[in-house]
Amino acid sequence: MGKAHSNAWRQATHFFPLKADVELHTICGCRGEAKTVVPTAVAKWGFKNGSTNWREVIKSPEIDIVDIVAPNHVHAEIAIAAAQAKKAILCEKPLALNTKECAEMLSAAKKAGIINMVMQNYRRVPAVAQAKKMIQEGALGTIYHYRARYAQDWITDPNFPLVWRLRKNVSGSGAHGDINAHIIDLARYLVGEFKEVCGLMHTFIKKRPLEDKDARAGGLGGQGTKKMGTVTVDDAAMFIGRFQNGALASLEATRFALGRKNQISFEINGSKGSLYFDLEDLNRLQYFDNSNPVDRQGFRDILVTQPGGIHPYVGQWWPPGHIIGYEHSFVHAVADFVNAVVENKPVKPDFEDGLKNQTVLEAVEESARTREWVKI
Amino acid sequence: MGKAHSNAWRQATHFFPLKADVELHTICGCRGEAKTVVPTAVAKWGFKNGSTNWREVIKSPEIDIVDIVAPNHVHAEIAIAAAQAKKAILCEKPLALNTKECAEMLSAAKKAGIINMVMQNYRRVPAVAQAKKMIQEGALGTIYHYRARYAQDWITDPNFPLVWRLRKNVSGSGAHGDINAHIIDLARYLVGEFKEVCGLMHTFIKKRPLEDKDARAGGLGGQGTKKMGTVTVDDAAMFIGRFQNGALASLEATRFALGRKNQISFEINGSKGSLYFDLEDLNRLQYFDNSNPVDRQGFRDILVTQPGGIHPYVGQWWPPGHIIGYEHSFVHAVADFVNAVVENKPVKPDFEDGLKNQTVLEAVEESARTREWVKI
Amino acid sequence: MGKAHSNAWRQATHFFPLKADVELHTICGCRGEAKTVVPTAVAKWGFKNGSTNWREVIKSPEIDIVDIVAPNHVHAEIAIAAAQAKKAILCEKPLALNTKECAEMLSAAKKAGIINMVMQNYRRVPAVAQAKKMIQEGALGTIYHYRARYAQDWITDPNFPLVWRLRKNVSGSGAHGDINAHIIDLARYLVGEFKEVCGLMHTFIKKRPLEDKDARAGGLGGQGTKKMGTVTVDDAAMFIGRFQNGALASLEATRFALGRKNQISFEINGSKGSLYFDLEDLNRLQYFDNSNPVDRQGFRDILVTQPGGIHPYVGQWWPPGHIIGYEHSFVHAVADFVNAVVENKPVKPDFEDGLKNQTVLEAVEESARTREWVKI
Amino acid sequence: MGKAHSNAWRQATHFFPLKADVELHTICGCRGEAKTVVPTAVAKWGFKNGSTNWREVIKSPEIDIVDIVAPNHVHAEIAIAAAQAKKAILCEKPLALNTKECAEMLSAAKKAGIINMVMQNYRRVPAVAQAKKMIQEGALGTIYHYRARYAQDWITDPNFPLVWRLRKNVSGSGAHGDINAHIIDLARYLVGEFKEVCGLMHTFIKKRPLEDKDARAGGLGGQGTKKMGTVTVDDAAMFIGRFQNGALASLEATRFALGRKNQISFEINGSKGSLYFDLEDLNRLQYFDNSNPVDRQGFRDILVTQPGGIHPYVGQWWPPGHIIGYEHSFVHAVADFVNAVVENKPVKPDFEDGLKNQTVLEAVEESARTREWVKI
Repeated sequence: MGKAHSNAWRQATHFFPLKADVELHTICGCRGEAKTVVPTAVAKWGFKNGSTNWREVIKSPEIDIVDIVAPNHVHAEIAIAAAQAKKAILCEKPLALNTKECAEMLSAAKKAGIINMVMQNYRRVPAVAQAKKMIQEGALGTIYHYRARYAQDWITDPNFPLVWRLRKNVSGSGAHGDINAHIIDLARYLVGEFKEVCGLMHTFIKKRPLEDKDARAGGLGGQGTKKMGTVTVDDAAMFIGRFQNGALASLEATRFALGRKNQISFEINGSKGSLYFDLEDLNRLQYFDNSNPVDRQGFRDILVTQPGGIHPYVGQWWPPGHIIGYEHSFVHAVADFVNAVVENKPVKPDFEDGLKNQTVLEAVEESARTREWVKI
Repeated sequence: MGKAHSNAWRQATHFFPLKADVELHTICGCRGEAKTVVPTAVAKWGFKNGSTNWREVIKSPEIDIVDIVAPNHVHAEIAIAAAQAKKAILCEKPLALNTKECAEMLSAAKKAGIINMVMQNYRRVPAVAQAKKMIQEGALGTIYHYRARYAQDWITDPNFPLVWRLRKNVSGSGAHGDINAHIIDLARYLVGEFKEVCGLMHTFIKKRPLEDKDARAGGLGGQGTKKMGTVTVDDAAMFIGRFQNGALASLEATRFALGRKNQISFEINGSKGSLYFDLEDLNRLQYFDNSNPVDRQGFRDILVTQPGGIHPYVGQWWPPGHIIGYEHSFVHAVADFVNAVVENKPVKPDFEDGLKNQTVLEAVEESARTREWVKI
Repeated sequence: MGKAHSNAWRQATHFFPLKADVELHTICGCRGEAKTVVPTAVAKWGFKNGSTNWREVIKSPEIDIVDIVAPNHVHAEIAIAAAQAKKAILCEKPLALNTKECAEMLSAAKKAGIINMVMQNYRRVPAVAQAKKMIQEGALGTIYHYRARYAQDWITDPNFPLVWRLRKNVSGSGAHGDINAHIIDLARYLVGEFKEVCGLMHTFIKKRPLEDKDARAGGLGGQGTKKMGTVTVDDAAMFIGRFQNGALASLEATRFALGRKNQISFEINGSKGSLYFDLEDLNRLQYFDNSNPVDRQGFRDILVTQPGGIHPYVGQWWPPGHIIGYEHSFVHAVADFVNAVVENKPVKPDFEDGLKNQTVLEAVEESARTREWVKI
Repeated sequence: MGKAHSNAWRQATHFFPLKADVELHTICGCRGEAKTVVPTAVAKWGFKNGSTNWREVIKSPEIDIVDIVAPNHVHAEIAIAAAQAKKAILCEKPLALNTKECAEMLSAAKKAGIINMVMQNYRRVPAVAQAKKMIQEGALGTIYHYRARYAQDWITDPNFPLVWRLRKNVSGSGAHGDINAHIIDLARYLVGEFKEVCGLMHTFIKKRPLEDKDARAGGLGGQGTKKMGTVTVDDAAMFIGRFQNGALASLEATRFALGRKNQISFEINGSKGSLYFDLEDLNRLQYFDNSNPVDRQGFRDILVTQPGGIHPYVGQWWPPGHIIGYEHSFVHAVADFVNAVVENKPVKPDFEDGLKNQTVLEAVEESARTREWVKI
């Protein structure tokens, strides 16, 4: 994520007409990284300074913007301090570990009156932004269905070790918080607020080999046998639900879908048309327009690469048909954020969105635990 | 459905090596059809006789097989009588209106010792049969996910009238019984038995214009205004669940997905591979094989049209790459059924499958009503 | 082909509103088939009679239509005799072995004033017929490009034997006459007449093992070694060209494209839009409409299955989204032919089309031989 | 192109383990750009210096590498001078205007013993590099067919003006030199050297409105009417041919394929398998493996995004399934070039490839002019 953010700041200045010059002032690492990671990053990305003391950095009067790309459990502390120091804040998702922290961050941001944003980069994939534009223009009419899936396959192998992402005390949750969070955000962005949810969370592989360092730490374990540890997060999470506007939702996140490397697919059906998107083909958007002549209807494969203001963001990159990739969505987010800060205008998704996203995540967790429907 | 079944009986004799000669002995219509529909059908499909008295027909000693393609509410009565008359029975889905009727039919069939089958034609789409074969051969390993959707769009228009399929007293249910039933059957066929389910059913358009005949019957209604009636079935039904073997399920049926004309799509993910199918491209099966070399993995687009015993059923039709259509699945079912009857061997799906399908349908309905998880 | 035609005659009566009753009067086989093939076919398809004497059959006053599904080298003789007997004639493609024969057949048909048709079934795939309709309605504007490929892979294996289709004296030509003929016909149907062509024909595998019967006939050959024979037809044929209306053409036929089982793909680009078709997905037609809003343009995936007169032919089959297959195109051709005969109206493609197709085929052969451009 | 190259130099240092530090020493513009374009570019991309005097720049002892991104007609002069100054040279395609110039550049490079490369960026799209790797590993066996198309649609509108790319004196040729050049390079890279070709070149729209500046320069022209000028290059060019290894070729380049924005599609068929690629989905490669079990064969959709050395180049970017875009191919080329220079090892495609590409282009032009086959 550090790479994606640093690249985004760099590329935003190369490709986008920002309303201010951007200086990469200081990159801040963890305590142990002062002599290794930090100076390397400074050199590679062209920061002016490096530091391992974020408390100091956020006080610098030379700094206007703080971009938080730290472990999730320190987001809140840094953000609140940065808000108090009147810095504009861009924070990697998830906003924080729980709704309480999110609410505190939002409160601090509001009190300080600072511009704030949570990095939900997929909103600024051009095809997704185009979907939003079309929905706002009424292309779908009344929305009936939002059906989304975020599918990966990187832990399907039972011998894949018990990495930190599979331990609840470090990561908070599994597929749910990591990737369901993205399609929940897209649901709120494209369709509206959830009203109620009912879901399940499941762990397919309950024991996994410890990583070497952890196995050694544990001390024991016979020769030739791998020490096993317990997976404490979900491998998959799915839920059904209703939006406040009456649409129905079906969402699923899994790390056990062999062949799906990083597939966010969603389909939205409305009274006038439908949209379909797949992140593995992120330059495309499928659109069914029910107003077409009846003998010429069909899902239209829009290649979202038309410059000249036709499609969002892509005009800053290459000619028609020249596709862009994953990291460009971060660049778009940074560009929008910088301009919002310069103009002192709100930008979405903000901390309030981060809080609402967390609220839905926790409601699904509660539903999975209690086996009940949960109101949002 | 009459057309699909008649065609199937005819084409089975043309294309499949049946173990007995098949004679289309009698086609039986409703009382009012004696002078119109029945003789037309006799002539068109080459039946020897026509009748409007099924009770007589099923007693004929010249008849070995009864194919029930009647309104759902008379399936049970006909089937039980036919079983008592020792006829082999092929019954269009749904087997009956409820589990009670299904159980009675099953009991009658067992008692009579007759061969019985429910027409779930999609099991015999070659790509689906190929999926079954591959799963049985272990191509997927342990199954983790079954995610299916049956999507149509024929009642999206709010001015579409209140036809019989939208009235509970006639049709039993809406999208749920009509189309969810198919993907539940495929789930049971390909993955296994359900353990528990939790779902919702929803009606998007609650009032619709009466059909002219109904409006007239109602008598009143001002000039120029359409008389409206209440939709009493679901427009969409979705549920999540668990299989007894530990796999997770997500199913959705809807008549409100614009652009999806008759799309049954399912994805099954296992520990060794994945499969994807879409009925709108029914000659194809997508297969991800995790044992391929790591730089050459990907979903493989199997065109299920190889003759010579390579792919199920298709060898009876055309050369490689010459695709078949919807109605062929009925022909395959009839061919298998005839041969089962001749050899007096059980054939699937049978009345027991029909009962189990109905059990899952009712569990989802109960869950939607009570907002609780329901054990199967 | 006999199977495809017999089925077509049968199914046309089952599914299409023909303007006359159709009786399958006599099926005619080769001399040696009088006791085997013919009676089997009579029984299976419900013909009234069987025969092995076509000269007699075509004189029968009870017969109005002669459908020629015989080896290519006897098409002309049968057709001319049938024309003289005033029978309407449907002739399997290719119309004959060369333009001279084709011209004689056309002349006989004209002189007799009979309805005549050559079976180019792919014109009546609904998606192809829909393409024609759209082009006639101006959806493409001025046509610039026709790019087509007919690709198969059934002789890629060098050990595949020297079957009759690979011997020029029996088959006339290889991929060129067998499958290029189809995409030439579609070119003429959809775009217009060719003006000039330049092409090549190539044989990749020049020697192949004889079939067992031929090897034995040859007498010699050491034990354990296969006797080899010479392939005398083309494995692949491709040409570029110009249409009279100024459009450009690129066509390719090959039996050496592994993975392509029976792929006719064509793309047509015009000043207002483009079309793309692939026979392996024959229920679909891709359409790009340049008049769509600039941010919503894309190839539209038309599922050509809408009944109610919306899409050609399909209304006689099943509801929306229920796809049809290869053989249905034969049924459509027979239905149109029967109605044309009843109404005594011309129907396309007729013998003149068969002749023109052969003219283009021979021009490409000449070009391949002389390495020159050839005018049509 | 300047943007793509500058970005590539910048990003190569950010993402690739280069064997030397790279300093962006001097960017060199045209004479008139000294006060505008050059300083802007210096600032935006972080060059140390700007200049408008390339003759001076290439003499600087501080400079090791010259990257030529200038109008095509000055490539030769700059490259020859740079070679004489012993600089390593990366030159944008086309290498030069004609084979004579190309040969002189190659000769100068050889004489100087410098590392040289022509920027044919598409060779380093990961999916294309993966295709090359698979072909080298024998995945396709003997190659039979290379069928490629480069299709765009940006001048389909007859009112699109007569820009410089449509004037032969400025651009050399039209679709042929601009885009056919790319698929010729890929042909040589993936299949081998051409043996003979036969082609055509065509201009659909022969007169176009002058651009405003040109119309004014022309002086006259009545009010309200647009002044028209003559298009002197090809709108489309296509050819068939043979490779030295016996494979057949069919290539087509067009700017008149509505809906195809920047589509390079190629299919390669061999004795063991087939490959298909489409630049509009550049992260994917379709692969048919004839050695798969017969019931499980099909085109496999390889998502070429696996890190860890599995797929070429992509390991430097993002996790699996996170796609990359058009510009990344330039970054890969620059990274390979830098490392080749540091290690003083040849790198492909080099000036010899540039010359050979030009040789094929001119052979096709000659064939189009003479209507004859032309040997390479």
